Amino acid sequence: MFQSQLFTKTQKEAPKDEEAINAKLLIRGGFVDKLMAGVYTFLPLGLIVLKKIENIIRDEMIKAGGQEILMPTLHPKRIWESTGRWEMMDDLYKLKDKSGKDFALGSTHEEVITPLMKKFIISYNDLPKYVFQIQNKFRDEPRAKSGLLRTREFIMKDLYSFHSNEKDMEDYYDEMKVHYKNIFDACGIGRETFITFASGGSFSKYSHEFQTITEAGEDKIFLCEKCKIAVNSEIIDNQNSCPECGNKDLIEKKAIEVGNIFKLKTKFSDSFELKFTDKDGLDKDIIMGCYGIGPARVMGAIIEVHHDENGIIWPKNIAPFQVHLLSLGKNKKSEKVYNSLKKQGIEVLYDDRDDSSAGEKFTEADLIGIPYRAVISEKTGDKIEIKKRCQKDIKLINEKELIKML
Amino acid sequence: MFQSQLFTKTQKEAPKDEEAINAKLLIRGGFVDKLMAGVYTFLPLGLIVLKKIENIIRDEMIKAGGQEILMPTLHPKRIWESTGRWEMMDDLYKLKDKSGKDFALGSTHEEVITPLMKKFIISYNDLPKYVFQIQNKFRDEPRAKSGLLRTREFIMKDLYSFHSNEKDMEDYYDEMKVHYKNIFDACGIGRETFITFASGGSFSKYSHEFQTITEAGEDKIFLCEKCKIAVNSEIIDNQNSCPECGNKDLIEKKAIEVGNIFKLKTKFSDSFELKFTDKDGLDKDIIMGCYGIGPARVMGAIIEVHHDENGIIWPKNIAPFQVHLLSLGKNKKSEKVYNSLKKQGIEVLYDDRDDSSAGEKFTEADLIGIPYRAVISEKTGDKIEIKKRCQKDIKLINEKELIKML
Repeated sequence: MFQSQLFTKTQKEAPKDEEAINAKLLIRGGFVDKLMAGVYTFLPLGLIVLKKIENIIRDEMIKAGGQEILMPTLHPKRIWESTGRWEMMDDLYKLKDKSGKDFALGSTHEEVITPLMKKFIISYNDLPKYVFQIQNKFRDEPRAKSGLLRTREFIMKDLYSFHSNEKDMEDYYDEMKVHYKNIFDACGIGRETFITFASGGSFSKYSHEFQTITEAGEDKIFLCEKCKIAVNSEIIDNQNSCPECGNKDLIEKKAIEVGNIFKLKTKFSDSFELKFTDKDGLDKDIIMGCYGIGPARVMGAIIEVHHDENGIIWPKNIAPFQVHLLSLGKNKKSEKVYNSLKKQGIEVLYDDRDDSSAGEKFTEADLIGIPYRAVISEKTGDKIEIKKRCQKDIKLINEKELIKML
Repeated sequence: MFQSQLFTKTQKEAPKDEEAINAKLLIRGGFVDKLMAGVYTFLPLGLIVLKKIENIIRDEMIKAGGQEILMPTLHPKRIWESTGRWEMMDDLYKLKDKSGKDFALGSTHEEVITPLMKKFIISYNDLPKYVFQIQNKFRDEPRAKSGLLRTREFIMKDLYSFHSNEKDMEDYYDEMKVHYKNIFDACGIGRETFITFASGGSFSKYSHEFQTITEAGEDKIFLCEKCKIAVNSEIIDNQNSCPECGNKDLIEKKAIEVGNIFKLKTKFSDSFELKFTDKDGLDKDIIMGCYGIGPARVMGAIIEVHHDENGIIWPKNIAPFQVHLLSLGKNKKSEKVYNSLKKQGIEVLYDDRDDSSAGEKFTEADLIGIPYRAVISEKTGDKIEIKKRCQKDIKLINEKELIKML
């Protein structure tokens, strides 16, 4: 893409009302724009990153047997009354239409998926089933102040699983831990993200969160460095040692929850009478699990983990482009190299602007954070100056070597 | 995809509260599920079709120079007050958060995009710019009763263009007519869809709609069969002849609006003081245009146009799969053919279920409406029985011929 065509521009200063590093860098780099506290627009570069994260998650959910659907945002009051959560859920946005009917904006979708599955699941032959969506959710969040880490409107992947017995659900739940690990590895925060024992609510002993360690995190976790698992501070009174090895020497860390998995058991099947006919001809409760990840929150967490004083350092898999090609001064080589890279299917942002100085271009490239920076100028002659965003070394290579490297 | 794995099932009867053909067939075929009047869930088959339509639109908008972004649903009251539409827009959903602040659910996004562009457009060098999104919108619609043709929550592609002068906007507006034609052609409703002169509101003589002729349509248009353009009944009193050739012999038709393009001129730039510095150093108003298409409404319109008494007849480009492979009785050939088709990258729904009769499978295949039906049974021997959904002829061909045909 020609950078001269991009309608966004980078900004030297971060907005004064943003405290979080992810928000500051995303806004300065032209990835997102803030409409109000906790509500952001994804600009072209930001949307590319978001879609890459979504696709990593989508591919992994399909590997986990998931079938993708898209549920609505507008929910009728009656479904939330069925589970008692119309009154109980504190952060539910509620509204009335012109005729006075009550609606909620979906903050989660158990109330939609459970009665939906009732139309299709009849017997044990129809189980298990795994259904997911990547969709917008809404929570009336008074403390929306951490950029993409805590917003009032946010993209979620939520998968719901339906089983004929608890053992089957437990097995799938454990399988999902592996899929989640794969996702966070692919997004470049695998090393910082730990499976964390958390509250299971009133109907399950534990749930599991995936917590990414960062100073920006609003959660407190206690990490067993040996087992690489953690305990959320919310249950540390009941569980003050590593659930795996019993080690009491847990280390306190700040972290952000990037995913969670939850054994719903029969909580929602009970509310909506979601049953199946078993081999013995008897009607039995369907056992459910749910599995969430917020792609935009993951994007924020990645930046909290991968940045320096100059800007973002995107991990390869989710970078908006693989290489940032900077043309300095007038030269005939840049466009030729851009075209060869494009021809090879390499994602390249081409800084073709001639109203910016070399210094400005370098500063912007560091801020935007594309993994490789390639510079072409009169000075580089036949060669191209290449530098990794995360390293200081600069190398001169030729076009062929550049293509091979990328 | 294995049909035995699909969690949805077809239904023999349409729900009693649905009148529109598109809703009846989509629900019976397992493409969508109705949560309440005007609010639907897209099920796996329906989501595949929706994404195909979205991608046709997206590709064409990128050809038109569009840069994709994603704006929010939750809008603060102040931006809608800036344009006076907080009070004026009758179908705006409004809500309050816990602290009592007022919000609207976006029914259109001029109020977001205009102040957003103000941050990035400074001089004539930054113009023109074209920005689009494919995003969920909300309208408090009391008459939501035509399936996907009129919903309260709906996906929209909205592109906004920004120009330094009216001539430039007019040229882009005309160019967009061609892009829209390409989209409706690709979606299989090109022959039934006509550019239609409609009201331009208070600030423009006309806008243009793209109207698809169908009995299910809620609009009335007057068509000039010679010029293939139409006039919306809303302006027929002022414009009672063909705007192109003057022909007064216009033919009344029912139609559904699948897209519209609108010259906004300075209506929104005025409200938000969106200006640019011209070559002469003077600040001037930016001229805007907007261009909408509803992908889900297009999906509904396609079905209203392409169906018969047995079900949907999907046009090739947006069909959920290219071929529906039916395995009848026990045979060893079906799975082999399925695997070869998959290997060739052909999208195939494989009806591998052994609890359905041949008759049931044929009926379901007609309802689901995939362009080709391929049948394998003991009876077909080495051959495969192939039939186009839109034709009656049945042919026996071999695997090689099938792959070539698809």
